[in-house]
Amino acid sequence: MMNESLLNPQSIVVVGGSDDISKPGGKLLKNILDGGFQGELSVINPKKETVQGIRCFKTVADLPEKIDLAILAIAAQHCVPAVKELAKTKSTRAFIVISAGFSEDGPEGAQLEEELKKAVEDVDGALIGPNCIGMLTPTYSGIFTSPVPKLDPKGCDFVSGSGSTAVFILESALPKGLTFSSLVTVGNSAQTGIEEVLEYWDESYIPGKSSNIKLIYVENIKNPDKLLKHASSLIRKGCRIAAIKSGITDAGQRATASHTGALASSDSAVEALFRKAGIVRCFGREELTTVASVFNYPKLEGKNLAIITHAGGAGVMLTDALSGGGLNIPAIEGKAHDDILNILNPGSSASNPIDILATGTAEQLGQVIEYCDTQMDNIHGMIVIFGSTGLSRVFDAYEMIDQKMKQCRKPVFPILPSISSAREEVEFFLSHGHINFPDEVVLARALTSINQTPAPAEEEIFTEGIDIQAIRTVIKHAPEGFLDPATNNELLEAAGIPIVEEGIATSKKELTALAQRLGFPLALKVIGPVHKSDVGGVTLNIKSETHLLSEYRRMRKIKGVKSVLVQKMQTGTELFIGAKYEPTFGHVILCGLGGIFVESLGDTSYGLAPLTFEEARSMVRSLKAYPVIKGARGKEGINEDKYVEIIVRLSTLLRYATEIKEIDLNPLIGNKDEIIAVDGRIRVEK
Amino acid sequence: MMNESLLNPQSIVVVGGSDDISKPGGKLLKNILDGGFQGELSVINPKKETVQGIRCFKTVADLPEKIDLAILAIAAQHCVPAVKELAKTKSTRAFIVISAGFSEDGPEGAQLEEELKKAVEDVDGALIGPNCIGMLTPTYSGIFTSPVPKLDPKGCDFVSGSGSTAVFILESALPKGLTFSSLVTVGNSAQTGIEEVLEYWDESYIPGKSSNIKLIYVENIKNPDKLLKHASSLIRKGCRIAAIKSGITDAGQRATASHTGALASSDSAVEALFRKAGIVRCFGREELTTVASVFNYPKLEGKNLAIITHAGGAGVMLTDALSGGGLNIPAIEGKAHDDILNILNPGSSASNPIDILATGTAEQLGQVIEYCDTQMDNIHGMIVIFGSTGLSRVFDAYEMIDQKMKQCRKPVFPILPSISSAREEVEFFLSHGHINFPDEVVLARALTSINQTPAPAEEEIFTEGIDIQAIRTVIKHAPEGFLDPATNNELLEAAGIPIVEEGIATSKKELTALAQRLGFPLALKVIGPVHKSDVGGVTLNIKSETHLLSEYRRMRKIKGVKSVLVQKMQTGTELFIGAKYEPTFGHVILCGLGGIFVESLGDTSYGLAPLTFEEARSMVRSLKAYPVIKGARGKEGINEDKYVEIIVRLSTLLRYATEIKEIDLNPLIGNKDEIIAVDGRIRVEK
Repeated sequence: MMNESLLNPQSIVVVGGSDDISKPGGKLLKNILDGGFQGELSVINPKKETVQGIRCFKTVADLPEKIDLAILAIAAQHCVPAVKELAKTKSTRAFIVISAGFSEDGPEGAQLEEELKKAVEDVDGALIGPNCIGMLTPTYSGIFTSPVPKLDPKGCDFVSGSGSTAVFILESALPKGLTFSSLVTVGNSAQTGIEEVLEYWDESYIPGKSSNIKLIYVENIKNPDKLLKHASSLIRKGCRIAAIKSGITDAGQRATASHTGALASSDSAVEALFRKAGIVRCFGREELTTVASVFNYPKLEGKNLAIITHAGGAGVMLTDALSGGGLNIPAIEGKAHDDILNILNPGSSASNPIDILATGTAEQLGQVIEYCDTQMDNIHGMIVIFGSTGLSRVFDAYEMIDQKMKQCRKPVFPILPSISSAREEVEFFLSHGHINFPDEVVLARALTSINQTPAPAEEEIFTEGIDIQAIRTVIKHAPEGFLDPATNNELLEAAGIPIVEEGIATSKKELTALAQRLGFPLALKVIGPVHKSDVGGVTLNIKSETHLLSEYRRMRKIKGVKSVLVQKMQTGTELFIGAKYEPTFGHVILCGLGGIFVESLGDTSYGLAPLTFEEARSMVRSLKAYPVIKGARGKEGINEDKYVEIIVRLSTLLRYATEIKEIDLNPLIGNKDEIIAVDGRIRVEK
Repeated sequence: MMNESLLNPQSIVVVGGSDDISKPGGKLLKNILDGGFQGELSVINPKKETVQGIRCFKTVADLPEKIDLAILAIAAQHCVPAVKELAKTKSTRAFIVISAGFSEDGPEGAQLEEELKKAVEDVDGALIGPNCIGMLTPTYSGIFTSPVPKLDPKGCDFVSGSGSTAVFILESALPKGLTFSSLVTVGNSAQTGIEEVLEYWDESYIPGKSSNIKLIYVENIKNPDKLLKHASSLIRKGCRIAAIKSGITDAGQRATASHTGALASSDSAVEALFRKAGIVRCFGREELTTVASVFNYPKLEGKNLAIITHAGGAGVMLTDALSGGGLNIPAIEGKAHDDILNILNPGSSASNPIDILATGTAEQLGQVIEYCDTQMDNIHGMIVIFGSTGLSRVFDAYEMIDQKMKQCRKPVFPILPSISSAREEVEFFLSHGHINFPDEVVLARALTSINQTPAPAEEEIFTEGIDIQAIRTVIKHAPEGFLDPATNNELLEAAGIPIVEEGIATSKKELTALAQRLGFPLALKVIGPVHKSDVGGVTLNIKSETHLLSEYRRMRKIKGVKSVLVQKMQTGTELFIGAKYEPTFGHVILCGLGGIFVESLGDTSYGLAPLTFEEARSMVRSLKAYPVIKGARGKEGINEDKYVEIIVRLSTLLRYATEIKEIDLNPLIGNKDEIIAVDGRIRVEK
């Protein structure tokens, strides 16, 4: 948990503070001092009277009577007694433990960590760490590393599962001019993990006062539900969140495992979780800090951009990268084209990119930006490219860009590439609180990642026509392992998923009666073996009673077969829906076309249960084989609405039947009118 | 063209040089002076005695008797007389014209440019520009822009189709520590374009002396054959080439068109050209300069990397990015694992990434690097991540990395992320001539782009069993437009492409005779209409004479049908091969599976004719549907060798029949034994 003592302490004691700034306790104290902490600062160091000019106390008992926050930089075995005494005698309710030697070190350390947590929780206190680099807030800089970012209540809130990675992310962030409102490194997360920090951000959010930019570096998501809940809540409140979840590939997961002892989660579950929450997923530090830089500007409320440049090549590369990533650089035509051309020197181009040429003036630049902002409804933001060839200073242009950025309703993203030859001008520009994007393609990739991240999914679960009571009853009585066809059908029926008309026959008499009821053509399948096709246990398109009886005789001779399933034969295209339970994440649901598309091409898309109609539709549409569903080149498509609905229904079923660890509806047969499940496998584990 | 006077002049005159360094003529003169040009430098300026301390001459006639290189910074209309006089009276054979006002300005300027070119070519001279920012070589810095790169004979050779983009690329290159051996900005390319610069680099290449790193920024490839020839030749000699070709997307092409008046080439042709040449394609300035930075290190001769890090998170992100891009971080096991672990402190990991922990020393780091270099045959290169948390200096570690980089046979790539808190140490490291990669993922993406670029394709054209004489004869006599089936077959036969057994029937009698010869089942297709299926002109799998005759009667009633094509019915999987002629590039050849894969999913891959077997195989293998060709999940595959061979044969056919502007073999029917073309359309334009 987090509390006010942790975030905004009036008094801090650094237990183990020293003069040696090459040691964590010394460096942390220095950072707090350099950061200008306004409250009471004290140090416990039995060997000194003062360290770094701050009065030392020999023991906890000697301290003033009230200490809000204690930062511990002492050997692991001394931490628990210190915490207990501080909690008891100094009413301390917030603790940051940077010391290592806890659970990351083995069973004894884990035991010590458990005791540490208990000592803090006994007084309902907040604990950060152990084994972390600390944290900082606008009140104090409680980290023992460099660099220390500039603090700003409107800067980024940043939580990291790795201390060194947090340091390196700051190394990438600071030269860009990013500021920070807070940084929390959770270390071993004994009490407070990444999810709890998000929870605090969410619950303490004050519109207009809290920072709207949240950054996350995470190696192990322990509580996906909590992360989803608070991330999407924050985004709905107006925040923007970017995160790195590392450990994607097999090799990367090995690296994670060796690093934190954490078991990495399957990546498709992570991807699905982030999409559901609306988190912009990043894969490296530069990418994260570039996305954070974009977050510092007003939100782009649409896909259409105007590029205003005085250099052609950069404009072309930018256009390529934006268009390739799904943003538009719409051609400017008609009156707007002529109006813009009128502002500019002869030879300029107004077709978008708007090329004001090397001879374009600051005034012309300003007029064009303003025109795009006020006169062009189909433009949602502007990107300005303005560098220097070194012939003249560009202060006037940068002053104009600054001014227009402040005036415009739409976002204006500045690309100032001349970081060497116009260094002074760029610094002048940054001193107005702006962030520069020196490379157009790097900016374009950040903009397109943001654009491709959906809004958080609605939380409501679709239950129309779904009999949750019935689902629970079936699951309660179901045995473990693969369910029999009748139980499969009961579950699918309870979820409102259309299933093929069918029946079970254990004798010739039952078989012929069923055939009469269902009508030819029929499909015949053995009951018993899990991989029916492999044992010759599936015959399709049986058109006569003679054929039916001969197949029945044959199938009854297959080992383990006592009865057969008789189904009305369906015609159409094969579809697939499946799901797998990922521990802690819940069900990852896959969909795709059946047959070769799933088997050989692996063309599936996925989402995390429960799914909304919007999510399911976006899954279906992101299939490579979507043109087949839509219908193309004169071929009839498949009923997309019904497919989406079945995916949603299955996801609700799973939401209320987490005992189902695997489910395959394969195939469903679909045409333009209907989609019907003709075979399924469900495995239950309780 | 380029010549020695241009590259290594003993004397230079700046025509239009001045004291005003905010003007091109003044700034260019200053850059030459600052660059320490060792030869004779003079200026023509009628109004001054000296400018910037250099003696001025009023006219060309006043100059010393021999001038190697003239750089013109005067109004366009004065350039031609100046060039003529210099060429005639001062034996000048090299000219750089930075002045604008030529072909980019309209028809009059184009005329002036033609005269300029003629004046230079009349004396067999070299001309760079007009409308460029100049050029620089190790001898002189003849550009009028900032920044001016550090010159180094082993640095990058760089040619750019855009002056401002060259400037911005330098802005990205210089902070990385990249040096340059030459820069040529071709401007309007009146005489010397990008292709001619490559030609010069190729023809003047001296092993061990010339730079091995070539960078290209190009908006318009005018002579793809020339670019291909010299780029692949340079790469075969040991060079490494990276290039940006901008103007990819429709919007990007509009930007190019408005910028240079150049018609952008179709991007798939560019992609195919670059792959054929072995050029690493980049899409932005940061990417280009990062790839160039990698080029400064020894070549990675394999796909296996060891990551040696003292910070887990950065190692995980790096592993994710490398693995995702096709490079391997193989698990280290057995003896090597134990040996490395023995070097390190307890708690370290040797499984790759090798995590030496924050407590790892410089000495341990050096031992691990050396172990990977000398003891591990399955490791082809090492990446070292070493930053600072700000607690202590890291000079010793950086000295060790420097030392090992010099000693190791394998490449060692340094990731030093702490550019702020270890700024002095990083600068110390860079001062040894190294290049740092501050972000691990940015490095990983450059390494994987390089890894994914194939070696230059062989130049030999496959002609075995191809009757070039016959091809030329057929084409010579062929009319324009779509060819008839018989002519199609003659061409395919001449190329050795298997075609279905078939015949043409114009009467019932001919039809039955053909049926007897070919044997049932048969396919019947109308001759005449281009889109046969659309008019009901294709019937497959005809098994009896009655059916054959009834279909024949029906088809003869279709408008425009006078005869039918009778084919032996083939069974197997549908394949597709097509080609389109791209002006200047030649034929772009596409391949893929037939049916839905091409029609709805657009799953094709492409290459530029003529193709080698290796290229064609890589095209086939890069299809998403390749598993179908290979055979998967118990389903029989298609004969890949035969498919590859037909693609190569078609590419040779097209190489000798450039009059073919479009060709579709659709479908070919393939199985594990054979692949046979059953339908084709060929369009000729002469």
